[in-house]
Amino acid sequence: MLRSHHCGALNESHSQTEVTLAGWVQKVRNKGFIVWTDLRDRYGITQLVFDEDRSPAEVYKKSLTLGREDVIQIKGMVIERESKNPNMPTGGIEILVRELTVLNAAKTPPFTIENQTDGGDELRMQYRYLDLRRTPVRENLIFRHKVTMAIRNFLSQADFIDVETPYLIKSTPEGARDFVVPSRMNNGQFYALPQSPQTFKQLLMVAGFDKYFQIVKCFRDEDLRADRQPEFTQIDCEMTFVDQEDVLQQFENLIKHLLKEIKGIQHGDFPRMTYYEALQKYGNDKPDIRFGMTFGELNAFAQNKGFNVFDSQALVVGIAVKGGASLTRKEIDRWIDWVKRPQVGAKGLVWVKYNEDGTFKSSVDKFFNAEDLARWAEATGAKPGDLIFVMAGKTHETRVQLSALRMEIATQMGLRKPDEFAALWVTDFPLLEWEEETQRYHAMHHPFTAPKKEQLKLLDKNPEKAMANAYDLVLNGNEIGGGSIRIHDTELQEKIFTLLGFTKEDARKQFGFLMDAFQYGAPPHGGIALGLDRLVAILGGSETIRDFIAFPKNNNGRDVMIDAPAALEEEQLHELFLKSIPKDPL
Amino acid sequence: MLRSHHCGALNESHSQTEVTLAGWVQKVRNKGFIVWTDLRDRYGITQLVFDEDRSPAEVYKKSLTLGREDVIQIKGMVIERESKNPNMPTGGIEILVRELTVLNAAKTPPFTIENQTDGGDELRMQYRYLDLRRTPVRENLIFRHKVTMAIRNFLSQADFIDVETPYLIKSTPEGARDFVVPSRMNNGQFYALPQSPQTFKQLLMVAGFDKYFQIVKCFRDEDLRADRQPEFTQIDCEMTFVDQEDVLQQFENLIKHLLKEIKGIQHGDFPRMTYYEALQKYGNDKPDIRFGMTFGELNAFAQNKGFNVFDSQALVVGIAVKGGASLTRKEIDRWIDWVKRPQVGAKGLVWVKYNEDGTFKSSVDKFFNAEDLARWAEATGAKPGDLIFVMAGKTHETRVQLSALRMEIATQMGLRKPDEFAALWVTDFPLLEWEEETQRYHAMHHPFTAPKKEQLKLLDKNPEKAMANAYDLVLNGNEIGGGSIRIHDTELQEKIFTLLGFTKEDARKQFGFLMDAFQYGAPPHGGIALGLDRLVAILGGSETIRDFIAFPKNNNGRDVMIDAPAALEEEQLHELFLKSIPKDPL
Repeated sequence: MLRSHHCGALNESHSQTEVTLAGWVQKVRNKGFIVWTDLRDRYGITQLVFDEDRSPAEVYKKSLTLGREDVIQIKGMVIERESKNPNMPTGGIEILVRELTVLNAAKTPPFTIENQTDGGDELRMQYRYLDLRRTPVRENLIFRHKVTMAIRNFLSQADFIDVETPYLIKSTPEGARDFVVPSRMNNGQFYALPQSPQTFKQLLMVAGFDKYFQIVKCFRDEDLRADRQPEFTQIDCEMTFVDQEDVLQQFENLIKHLLKEIKGIQHGDFPRMTYYEALQKYGNDKPDIRFGMTFGELNAFAQNKGFNVFDSQALVVGIAVKGGASLTRKEIDRWIDWVKRPQVGAKGLVWVKYNEDGTFKSSVDKFFNAEDLARWAEATGAKPGDLIFVMAGKTHETRVQLSALRMEIATQMGLRKPDEFAALWVTDFPLLEWEEETQRYHAMHHPFTAPKKEQLKLLDKNPEKAMANAYDLVLNGNEIGGGSIRIHDTELQEKIFTLLGFTKEDARKQFGFLMDAFQYGAPPHGGIALGLDRLVAILGGSETIRDFIAFPKNNNGRDVMIDAPAALEEEQLHELFLKSIPKDPL
Repeated sequence: MLRSHHCGALNESHSQTEVTLAGWVQKVRNKGFIVWTDLRDRYGITQLVFDEDRSPAEVYKKSLTLGREDVIQIKGMVIERESKNPNMPTGGIEILVRELTVLNAAKTPPFTIENQTDGGDELRMQYRYLDLRRTPVRENLIFRHKVTMAIRNFLSQADFIDVETPYLIKSTPEGARDFVVPSRMNNGQFYALPQSPQTFKQLLMVAGFDKYFQIVKCFRDEDLRADRQPEFTQIDCEMTFVDQEDVLQQFENLIKHLLKEIKGIQHGDFPRMTYYEALQKYGNDKPDIRFGMTFGELNAFAQNKGFNVFDSQALVVGIAVKGGASLTRKEIDRWIDWVKRPQVGAKGLVWVKYNEDGTFKSSVDKFFNAEDLARWAEATGAKPGDLIFVMAGKTHETRVQLSALRMEIATQMGLRKPDEFAALWVTDFPLLEWEEETQRYHAMHHPFTAPKKEQLKLLDKNPEKAMANAYDLVLNGNEIGGGSIRIHDTELQEKIFTLLGFTKEDARKQFGFLMDAFQYGAPPHGGIALGLDRLVAILGGSETIRDFIAFPKNNNGRDVMIDAPAALEEEQLHELFLKSIPKDPL
């Protein structure tokens, strides 16, 4: 061992002990006759003293050459500091150095290794191994470790078995795009990397494993959006002989346990909300319910009063902004401009000030009197001092736009507090969605989701009306998980495949093994998959998953540190019986 | 929840309780007026009674239609059995059934779901979800779960941080073949799947993570040998500011802990053996030391006695077979035939019986007298009643052949007991091996292994003589792990790359990021990687890793259950800018 203690271990109780430490030079302060150096490792920082009088001459001399991030080993005596720093665990002591070995000198790093660094995003990604030295980044990953250990131990104690499912599987064009892996041993054939272990976990239930979990990498070759990664980590779970309520209870308990264990927070029972209720109240199927601002539908009080902008629309809907009556016209105009941006795409906003004195002032005073506006206030929950913003338009579109406004206002007002947690279940999703573009249904969750039993007959005439036994887990306005009760009989599974536009042959070719399995005694089962990256980020008080991944890829799917992907050797391609073709072969 | 209890839960204390159970029909015994059915789930088996008198008529009638592997749910009353079965936890009770629901009827499975099944290997792999229902297979995977949880908790408590490293990385032609993944977003470029997270864990050490572990899938596109998998699981670990002794101590403690925790076995300190010592004593760098039969080198006592077969060879070496003096000539001839098989490739065996009365009888009595043979006995440790087998030939070749014989004899004599455990460390591996075929050195462990400090100067003149700070962990004759102290400075790393035949450009292109990292303050570090599949198999008393993998691939790298790999849709290939070429393009 190159050290007797780590850099966070020593305090006054070690006074007059001979120690050996090793670590990185964080800082050097040369006072002329004495050099103070902060030595850093994962565990903390310890102050070293090189003294012209008290250290050997050559050691003192060598200390003058130390630079930031040099890796050194020292031997010395723990002594009490004259002026102690009560803010750090080692703040009571320093080490009077007797021996100094430079284990590895460092070039000056391209950015400072400090909590607040001067390095830009790209530079920090290129030198990720230096970025990871910064305390907040390292702490994020240690936090991730703690969360995953807590999850594993909780699930293991609840009788879930961790089973590894294969990474080299078969491509299924349904859903997102697969990453594929050419097989050298099977000419012209490919494996695919799993988008999730869905079918395998269902087979484990058919196999009688009863309760399964796995923390597992999944892969999706999507055009990347900000904060999406081509490889991501899933907490994948499945249970047998359960109904929806059992799954909800089990994983509500998991999240409560994590909040308790990791954050010291006691979270009450999670509210439940149907998909339609979430859309109606929040314009969003993953509502952030930490602050009010629920939607008030105003059609009854706002239409047929001669204001044409409202009269012609399907939905008139508003939200109350707490204390917003004090906003200036300029500030209100900024919000109007904000919703008109193409990213939101609204036509505008009607506003109503509910003044402290109980009077109203609005942008539509010509059409609505105080009595009308009082009704708006009641519907949106506005109180004196508040501001009401109102939108009108097509139902779904308008809800989505108002939801964007609601979230942005909340963010700007500091209502989305990173240390406050509100989870809920969103339930009763439709089984299928009609896709205009492809003129066919696609599965809202995935093709293995069971319709609600009592709605099975809808599949024949009005399949889009059938609800699924599907549920999402939402935390602080982010979907952190989703699942369903699955289909467990061949006939229903075949019917769903047909509704989704599969031919019998395609269904057989891609999922024959699953439909076969269902014929040999498949039990009722269901489960959930949670996004670990996002869950950890939110628990850690952030919504940026990249901050909680050791070696993330950029928005083009590149690892700029190792420079991947990259061209292959000609020979490698040849061995795989493949040829690259130019991007535009025409 | 579709059940009130699982099938292993009920006993006499539940007598007269109304319960709901769900599970699979294991067995039906129809006695004419009473039907006994065994209901199975992961947790156990509970006996159900359908009684013509005591069960409702339609329930009794339905019970007559039940078949093997049907999934059913029943409600009924726990009653004490008249004749109890003390060998099973639920053997004191049975359930008098009141309600029976067939949740999913099963076709007759293609093989029996019993501990000893009638299904062949291929059939069981095709219907792996049924094979997994068999108790020994399921128990193997539950065992694997227990082992991994024990490993994770041990390492986590020892301050190791579980960090996920990326799966989509860059291909490095050094070492085994990579599986590659074409990038749709980067025309003509490929990711590679990791053969191990080696460089990433080293970067984590550069980043100051201090202690890292990960249980992680790794991928190697090798021509498969029996019991090799293209994807396998590694316990990957790395530590900073350590020397070899620290790594050995840490992971010796891990294995001792597992043996204690999982098997209830207290294992003593692991013996250490150098690579050369292992070869000399066991002909093998992963010796099974559970039984003696160490090699006795006989050159001094067997050469220059006129026996030309020995005189002309580099090595004459023997082993003693306990009690082997009673073997018949026919049995001895079978062993001679065995070593002559092409898989072993020996020319023959000389044998010496050390009779119980102290006399010797050998196949070479013409050349050697009793005094000579007594020396052979002493060198091989043979006692009266034993048999000595002797081989001669080129040193390494002969050792390998005698080792094969030793292992086969031990297997046939039942000396390789699955419930007896003997671990050891093999150390002092050569850094490099000369490869005749390619006329260059290759790294015995990998290119990042550090030579022993005191032998650095050998690299210039006699690189093949330099020893590495490398070590293997061996358990019961299997290598279950290997590791080394790593190089941590750029200059030495460049020198090794040059010795391995890399051009400066290639080294830069493939490992530039690592050599850059070494310049910014890389600490001394080292680690180990253990093969989880094999470790679990051996702890589980088997050497067949496939039995401890939920969904293994066959020897052609195929998953016969899902039928992967498979051809892609034309469009998928096109999106990846790839074209398949026929196997023999000429």
